[in-house]
Amino acid sequence: MDFLKGDERLDYLLAENLRIIQSPTVFSFSLDAVLLARFVYVPIQKGNLIDLCSGNGVIPLFLSVRTKGTITGVEIQERLFDMAQRSIEYNQLEHRLHMIHGDIKDMPKELGYGKFDVVTCNPPYFPTPSSEEINENEHLAIARHEILCTLEDAIKASSQLVRQGGKVAFVHRPGRFLDIVTLMRKYNLEPKKVQFVYPKQGKEANTLLIEATKNGSPDLKIMPPLIVYNDDNEYTSEIKDILYGK
Amino acid sequence: MDFLKGDERLDYLLAENLRIIQSPTVFSFSLDAVLLARFVYVPIQKGNLIDLCSGNGVIPLFLSVRTKGTITGVEIQERLFDMAQRSIEYNQLEHRLHMIHGDIKDMPKELGYGKFDVVTCNPPYFPTPSSEEINENEHLAIARHEILCTLEDAIKASSQLVRQGGKVAFVHRPGRFLDIVTLMRKYNLEPKKVQFVYPKQGKEANTLLIEATKNGSPDLKIMPPLIVYNDDNEYTSEIKDILYGK
Repeated sequence: MDFLKGDERLDYLLAENLRIIQSPTVFSFSLDAVLLARFVYVPIQKGNLIDLCSGNGVIPLFLSVRTKGTITGVEIQERLFDMAQRSIEYNQLEHRLHMIHGDIKDMPKELGYGKFDVVTCNPPYFPTPSSEEINENEHLAIARHEILCTLEDAIKASSQLVRQGGKVAFVHRPGRFLDIVTLMRKYNLEPKKVQFVYPKQGKEANTLLIEATKNGSPDLKIMPPLIVYNDDNEYTSEIKDILYGK
Repeated sequence: MDFLKGDERLDYLLAENLRIIQSPTVFSFSLDAVLLARFVYVPIQKGNLIDLCSGNGVIPLFLSVRTKGTITGVEIQERLFDMAQRSIEYNQLEHRLHMIHGDIKDMPKELGYGKFDVVTCNPPYFPTPSSEEINENEHLAIARHEILCTLEDAIKASSQLVRQGGKVAFVHRPGRFLDIVTLMRKYNLEPKKVQFVYPKQGKEANTLLIEATKNGSPDLKIMPPLIVYNDDNEYTSEIKDILYGK
């Protein structure tokens, strides 16, 4: 198939009638991205959405099912940008999805301040380690560590891109929760909605979904807990619905 | 019975072999207090603990089962202070529990700075309303609204009372979560452990338990979710265990 290069696969986007190009050695999307694409508020009929640190474009693809608006994805790694672009073409979504190969820090200047209704971001989770410890696979290292993009870079860029009253949603680890809310408030993003994801009943949360409103008024809601696996180590019915549809 | 006045009752402290004096018109303890007394870290063999905004002393009474240390309760309302003191006497715990009738803001000066291993507080939840809206029952109004004690007063006093590395635990509403973590950090209390309490599966959290360490290093854990009622509107087995014992 012309769409695929090297060890790439054309995977199903599960519940959605879409396909996505993935590669085990370069990048595969995670449950976190799926949960973020479902958690964030989206305007249904129209709107201008942007996804930062887009990877292979999984969030724009998922969002395309929830909105008729236009969606921009930004990815700094050319290899991933290229995969995302080919997935968009394969799904014939070029008329309202497009990818930008660039640095998120440059986007407000390039695309304009306050032009987006919604910004999503599944940023690298881990602080930059020493060069010895770093993941030897450069693609995975950049996607996982704050090498080219710190949490503050991502929150600052989001705040600059979103319009007054618009939404910014992130997925991250609970250990960074206080940093995220502190940085969001620093950049005039008021956290309004948080959902914690627990691997199992009785376990600590390992994922955090958070949505803020640009210059919103303080009023935080903690959404119902999301449990990923049941006692038999199978996906719970809630997660199955998200992944495979009802 | 000599211990009781007016419409007071001598209620069981459920899972514990204790009794507590309550009054429907003055003050009855809530599930929140029980959850806080169970959530907070306590030293088992010895230690110096203090509970602020103690009401009828429910948290000191519950804590007395978990530790052999000494526990001080502080309550500004004389009527509640008096109920708490009589409950302590009824349970013959005077040798290691004692109540202070006073303002929490004066306690660091009176009791000393950094003298406590653990501070707990179930503060008034609601901002002070206009004098027209205010609860006509003054006892309940003071217990529920920030009339004599704001959230910042409570967090500041807690930080002054606790020793370096000691623990401060609060229970509150999730809507105040960002205020609490911001104020805690302002007073050198680093949030380390948070648990959200949900009235039912699939509902938003309505209660927040949070524990901080004085001058601790940043590392927040989100504990497993606590669900209060099952689909039949009965307490879940987890809550039953907490209230009635295993």
